[in-house]
Amino acid sequence: MANTNGTSEGLEWRVTISDRSPEKPAVESSWICRAWIGLLGIILALKSKVWRFWEKIRKLAVDDPRRIFHCFKVGLALTLVSLFYYIKPLHDGIGGTAMWAICTVVVVFEYTVGATLSKGLNRGVATLVAGALGFAIHWLASQTGEKAEPVVLGVLVFLIVSTATFFRFVPTVKTRFDYGVLIFILTFSLVSISGYHEEKLFKLARERLCTIAIGGFMCLLVSISICPIWAGEELHHLITCNIEKLANSLDDFFFFFLDLGYVAEYFNESGSTSDNKEPCQKSQGYKSVLNSKTTEESLANLARWEPPHGRCWFRHPWKQYLKIAAAIRCCAYRVEALNGSINSEIKAPEFMKKHLSEACIKLSFQSSMVLKELVTTTKSMSRSSNIEFLVGEMNGAVEDLRSSLKSLPDQVPPTLLPPSIEAMEEETPCISTTKVPLTEVMPLVVLTSLLIEIAGRIQGVVDAVNELAAHANFKPAVDAEPR
Amino acid sequence: MANTNGTSEGLEWRVTISDRSPEKPAVESSWICRAWIGLLGIILALKSKVWRFWEKIRKLAVDDPRRIFHCFKVGLALTLVSLFYYIKPLHDGIGGTAMWAICTVVVVFEYTVGATLSKGLNRGVATLVAGALGFAIHWLASQTGEKAEPVVLGVLVFLIVSTATFFRFVPTVKTRFDYGVLIFILTFSLVSISGYHEEKLFKLARERLCTIAIGGFMCLLVSISICPIWAGEELHHLITCNIEKLANSLDDFFFFFLDLGYVAEYFNESGSTSDNKEPCQKSQGYKSVLNSKTTEESLANLARWEPPHGRCWFRHPWKQYLKIAAAIRCCAYRVEALNGSINSEIKAPEFMKKHLSEACIKLSFQSSMVLKELVTTTKSMSRSSNIEFLVGEMNGAVEDLRSSLKSLPDQVPPTLLPPSIEAMEEETPCISTTKVPLTEVMPLVVLTSLLIEIAGRIQGVVDAVNELAAHANFKPAVDAEPR
Repeated sequence: MANTNGTSEGLEWRVTISDRSPEKPAVESSWICRAWIGLLGIILALKSKVWRFWEKIRKLAVDDPRRIFHCFKVGLALTLVSLFYYIKPLHDGIGGTAMWAICTVVVVFEYTVGATLSKGLNRGVATLVAGALGFAIHWLASQTGEKAEPVVLGVLVFLIVSTATFFRFVPTVKTRFDYGVLIFILTFSLVSISGYHEEKLFKLARERLCTIAIGGFMCLLVSISICPIWAGEELHHLITCNIEKLANSLDDFFFFFLDLGYVAEYFNESGSTSDNKEPCQKSQGYKSVLNSKTTEESLANLARWEPPHGRCWFRHPWKQYLKIAAAIRCCAYRVEALNGSINSEIKAPEFMKKHLSEACIKLSFQSSMVLKELVTTTKSMSRSSNIEFLVGEMNGAVEDLRSSLKSLPDQVPPTLLPPSIEAMEEETPCISTTKVPLTEVMPLVVLTSLLIEIAGRIQGVVDAVNELAAHANFKPAVDAEPR
Repeated sequence: MANTNGTSEGLEWRVTISDRSPEKPAVESSWICRAWIGLLGIILALKSKVWRFWEKIRKLAVDDPRRIFHCFKVGLALTLVSLFYYIKPLHDGIGGTAMWAICTVVVVFEYTVGATLSKGLNRGVATLVAGALGFAIHWLASQTGEKAEPVVLGVLVFLIVSTATFFRFVPTVKTRFDYGVLIFILTFSLVSISGYHEEKLFKLARERLCTIAIGGFMCLLVSISICPIWAGEELHHLITCNIEKLANSLDDFFFFFLDLGYVAEYFNESGSTSDNKEPCQKSQGYKSVLNSKTTEESLANLARWEPPHGRCWFRHPWKQYLKIAAAIRCCAYRVEALNGSINSEIKAPEFMKKHLSEACIKLSFQSSMVLKELVTTTKSMSRSSNIEFLVGEMNGAVEDLRSSLKSLPDQVPPTLLPPSIEAMEEETPCISTTKVPLTEVMPLVVLTSLLIEIAGRIQGVVDAVNELAAHANFKPAVDAEPR
């Protein structure tokens, strides 16, 4: 059955290895086969790429289903505004410039109510001011005679646009009114320049303002009435999440110290890095806390535009949230340093690890408890009756760790002391840690020191949350038994 | 001369203390006086407010005069585009929709060339795609009959707009094409909706595309030809600055250790916080490094849009800059922890401070030298012949510090040892640091440990910069004598 008419070496080779299916016609043009395999490869690669993209999209939707709602809300607002085009009577009213209403909806409709309000108000007020100024400039230019008019107009537009552009660099303007200044420049240019030819300035300005108002109103109506997403609540949630992430990292350190003190003795290679890697991989949550400043500031800025809603009344202290965020970040920097220390080899002798780890376990546990209580406090917006007790426990744990450090030299087991010292032990109080070199003790000392410093920074977070509780009138504490 | 006709107590009181200017007519209606003072106060407060604002504005301009250039460039581009309105023949061509060109200039013209290009291309391509899709949808709807048309059109617009809005949540789309998707939604809505009534779809779409092209081209022309500000160069500068800031912080630590070792003995209160505060206030520069991630990522993203310029050729490794930035930030977190440790009281005994500070001074000096060499390397974009030598010196300083720590117990001066130990010193080698409690040594140990860790992280920065040098073809090193 083996085909011996093969004309090329390639084919002969194919024949020799295809002996498992001798029924197949062996003479095939190999390039078709290769092309087919190539095509199949491309299709499969494309399929897996599309699949991965689809998975990413699905994850985005599943992680926060409000995103889907937002998309439908934008579609709805646009469909509502486009009614001005569809329905004849309305069209005759402002149809020609209804384009501005569509523009407004597309540009102004943002994810949060605060952003939508901020953009809408910026757009409205800027259009009004720029329109008025455009008129004034236009009138001023027209007084200079027909020949000088375009020159005067050009120079004035150039100067005003340049000045307004410069204001976009001023930090306070940039954070709150950047979009307003942009729209000011846009409207001012349109009114003062287009007015030169069309001479229907009033109509243009009035229509633009009217359609922008309609578009903005539609955005707000849809944004607030259907599943509103408040920037303030996002900020509140973000801060709570960040505290929770820190607490989780401390929990992971808790397990690390547990390993250090108890599990390590089962494995003879004390301080091996394989023991230490797991908590580090788990405790990466705090990393996002390190870089959340920009998001927090932007949310706090948008929250200030929002009307009272839910538990956030007029003049809710959004700035206080930024103080809490700063305190959390300050704490996270130390957690990052602690995480770095955990990754370095811990060579300290077993007795020392055991002696210190107990106090470290207690402190990391108590610190995490305080943070978790803060999460409950901020989540429920009610004062905690436990927090003082828990902070006291945490400070107690700090003192315990300090005294563990102090009593460390007394813990040196006799077996670790060299014979000369051991012999003298009965006579003199000279129990020495010099037999344990400082360089070996160092990583452990650094760990405990950073843990103590983290507890200090947590106190800062507690103070900031307490201040928020005072400013934002948190519900009074319900008496509960201290845990 | 004292006026006794005072009608009110207030006046009488005024008379009694105004005896230094007895010539003044004392009978004055007090409210005028008060109003005058109040008005003066308001004017002065207003004046000082305006003055402070002016100072802020002036500082913005002085800090970076390119901002002024940017403003003039925006004014110029707008004036050039408005020529389409001023000059009759042009006006008859596309005058009616020249408004789009003005819009384009105002919205697209950004501070950096990369941002302008990115927005311009996004706007252009999105308009093209959305226009085509708008046509298709419009044609599709028109095939369903006159009655069904608005319904089909509405449903399709709703679905496509909602889908496009969702894509704005996809991270890669958000960072690079957010503006494009926005313009896609805008143009698509305008074409598919407005087409329903006006039936001059082709004209509208063509004009919009044409004017956007004119506006975009004008922006690019002005942006690139007059004092161009490249996002890539901004990123390059930012990274260099950040390395420099870290070096300066280390210099401040250098002075801190200098104080700790030598100056402290002149003031008897060793480790007093007043000694330590100055370097901390000086070394705050690194704080901005902690939060520069967002800026760096945005600049790196914009830099990828830019054409080759200066020393940055096609496919310049912008992503490598982000790796350097991450390494710098990693280092800055440790500097932050070190800064925190400096602020805590350092109670260690004098002999210990002196013994360790020498090695610390050397290490902070060498670390700073390495960073400064990296600044020179990145600034000049040429490899350094010194860097290996300097890194070697830094690592040598780390070893010195380690051995200083090891030899610490041998440094305990006899006066610090209790009599019983002192007497025995001749007989046994038991020189003990137990007389120096671990808790007192701790802050100093933590300081040195963090300093060693910073040196390790600097190695990471060196590696990242070397990688950039390889990818970006830095000029070869010129042989120089090691400093």
